[in-house]
Amino acid sequence: MKLGVIPGDGIGIDVTAEALRVLDAVLPGVEKIDYDLGAARYLRTGEILPDSVLHEVRGHDAILLGAIGDPSVPPGVLERDLLLRLRFELDHYVNLRPAKLYPGVATPLGGAPEIDFVVYREGTEGPYTGNGGVLRRATPNEVATEVSVNTAFGVERVVRAAFRKAQSREKKRLTLVHKTNVLKFAGGLWQRTVDAVGAEFPEVTVDYNHVDAVMIHLVTHPERYDVIVTDNLFGDIVTDLAAAVCGGIGLAASANLNPDRQSPSMFEPVHGSAPDIAGQDKADPTAAVLSVALMLDHLGEAEAAAKIESVVRDDLAKRDPENPGGTREIGERLAAAAAA
Amino acid sequence: MKLGVIPGDGIGIDVTAEALRVLDAVLPGVEKIDYDLGAARYLRTGEILPDSVLHEVRGHDAILLGAIGDPSVPPGVLERDLLLRLRFELDHYVNLRPAKLYPGVATPLGGAPEIDFVVYREGTEGPYTGNGGVLRRATPNEVATEVSVNTAFGVERVVRAAFRKAQSREKKRLTLVHKTNVLKFAGGLWQRTVDAVGAEFPEVTVDYNHVDAVMIHLVTHPERYDVIVTDNLFGDIVTDLAAAVCGGIGLAASANLNPDRQSPSMFEPVHGSAPDIAGQDKADPTAAVLSVALMLDHLGEAEAAAKIESVVRDDLAKRDPENPGGTREIGERLAAAAAA
Ligand SMILES: CC(C)[C@H](C(=O)O)[C@@H](O)C(=O)O
Ligand SMILES: CC(C)[C@H](C(=O)O)[C@@H](O)C(=O)O
Repeated sequence: MKLGVIPGDGIGIDVTAEALRVLDAVLPGVEKIDYDLGAARYLRTGEILPDSVLHEVRGHDAILLGAIGDPSVPPGVLERDLLLRLRFELDHYVNLRPAKLYPGVATPLGGAPEIDFVVYREGTEGPYTGNGGVLRRATPNEVATEVSVNTAFGVERVVRAAFRKAQSREKKRLTLVHKTNVLKFAGGLWQRTVDAVGAEFPEVTVDYNHVDAVMIHLVTHPERYDVIVTDNLFGDIVTDLAAAVCGGIGLAASANLNPDRQSPSMFEPVHGSAPDIAGQDKADPTAAVLSVALMLDHLGEAEAAAKIESVVRDDLAKRDPENPGGTREIGERLAAAAAA
Repeated sequence: MKLGVIPGDGIGIDVTAEALRVLDAVLPGVEKIDYDLGAARYLRTGEILPDSVLHEVRGHDAILLGAIGDPSVPPGVLERDLLLRLRFELDHYVNLRPAKLYPGVATPLGGAPEIDFVVYREGTEGPYTGNGGVLRRATPNEVATEVSVNTAFGVERVVRAAFRKAQSREKKRLTLVHKTNVLKFAGGLWQRTVDAVGAEFPEVTVDYNHVDAVMIHLVTHPERYDVIVTDNLFGDIVTDLAAAVCGGIGLAASANLNPDRQSPSMFEPVHGSAPDIAGQDKADPTAAVLSVALMLDHLGEAEAAAKIESVVRDDLAKRDPENPGGTREIGERLAAAAAA
């Protein structure tokens, strides 16, 4: 197994080291190729994602990414030309983000609601395509547009993947999240696709929620969700709220999948590079570690993946919320437990 | 003062009756013209918003709206051709939504965080313009687009209104909410506009948050916000989460303002028509009542507005959360207190 590693910027570097430590503990001998991509390289050389690197990365089995972004680079440049470019070039059409409240983890909602759902966020279209433009820039008559592009091809494949997942789960519930009452063109395509694909999955109960209603449900009745399928932008928004109610962004893992395996999938914590705490042994590496579990699962190493998840679950149940330990300490604790 | 009243559908009818009861108690003698618009009229006559009605309504001082939408009408039809059409035709470019956690109100977050901010949601552009289209509908090659249209004219006027508001408040903080790292065309216009207008308001502290980060902050540190300015769709999403953390959609008021007074402004609770509980004396009319307070404030009746807010505040502090009373009982209680 050949793994491309892109620690990236800020705490991305800190948490990736620990994620690899746990990987080595649970599955020794994975070959890792490190890529120096992110703010430092950009500032040094002007390069963001050279074609040669992209070409090389295509040959690997998977990519582990830390986080991208630094205040010394204009906002959006690295996000778009590195992170989003990887997702688009490698056709990561399923951005999978589990939302699970582990026992013992404090949620801002208080109590211990049963939260255990997965979001299938479309990863290669919608408002993320970069379509749009600016007319009469910086004049009183400026017009700026953003075009959300949605294709039957793109919507159908993520919807089908979400239905397959729903079919495999106990509750077998799928909720389409959109804003069909306003965005009637894209909304129509999404709704018709869910209706059509749903007919092939008669055991799955299908539901629809407007994205604004999801805001309310996620803080009042998060247990109602099982599998959510949604577009790229709504998925971005909904998964951060989901992470927040599941104890915070320090625990939220994600997978950028090409389920057809025509290119390597990419695994990354949902959190950003948090430059304010970078290199200070403060970041929680748990989200990165759980992203390794998603990776192993995708690569057919179900046992190793389950081992990591159970080790994390045990650790979270025992953690002192006031004093969970530093980045390295948590990583070493998880690695030791995973090796045992 | 001449008030156009559109109770609309479902619980819109229930709560509007109580909102008017409180209005009469605090400011007797307002002339009211009732409009039969919504699902019932549409199903009876096929009409949604006849031009003659729109023309008449333009002549009033303000509009009070209950809620729009019914399962017997295809989703989106009434929302777009009645509610959104009113907002667009009457040029309601500020959709103002206060988020305040009143003493004694239970928040799903637990505890009693200090939440007191206002959202200035743009109301006449963005992804709500209906721009976009469908190509090769219902074929495997379908392409559906949605175009977010943002103009310097449209962005500047809502940003300026938000800065004026921030300037008048104690904390004098303004946060732009967008997704500039992905939506670079629209994001650029919004960010440059905030920078330029901000230069005229040196006392206001300006901040920026990505919409996904707001999801986290609103459930962990909602007290950080004072005035939020954002686009039509992000505003829709953020204000429902804000309502949820402030005790629920039953308390969230909103104003669709034309601050230049070239057309009547429109006041409505944030909640929908909730057909499942319509006509059952179950809906909380408080959001509609608070919308009347926003209306009176806009119309220069600051004292009457303050009276309603203080009566609501007192009532909320004393309410039994398990048994707040029915729609009518709450309305009568508030009206009696307002008349005293
Ligand atoms: C950094 C940004 C481009 C990215 C996104 O919007 O997808 C991030 O928020 C995420 O959710 O992975
Ligand atoms: C009903 C719908 C069109 C409307 C909107 O999206 O603006 C509603 O959600 C709101 O927030 O007032």
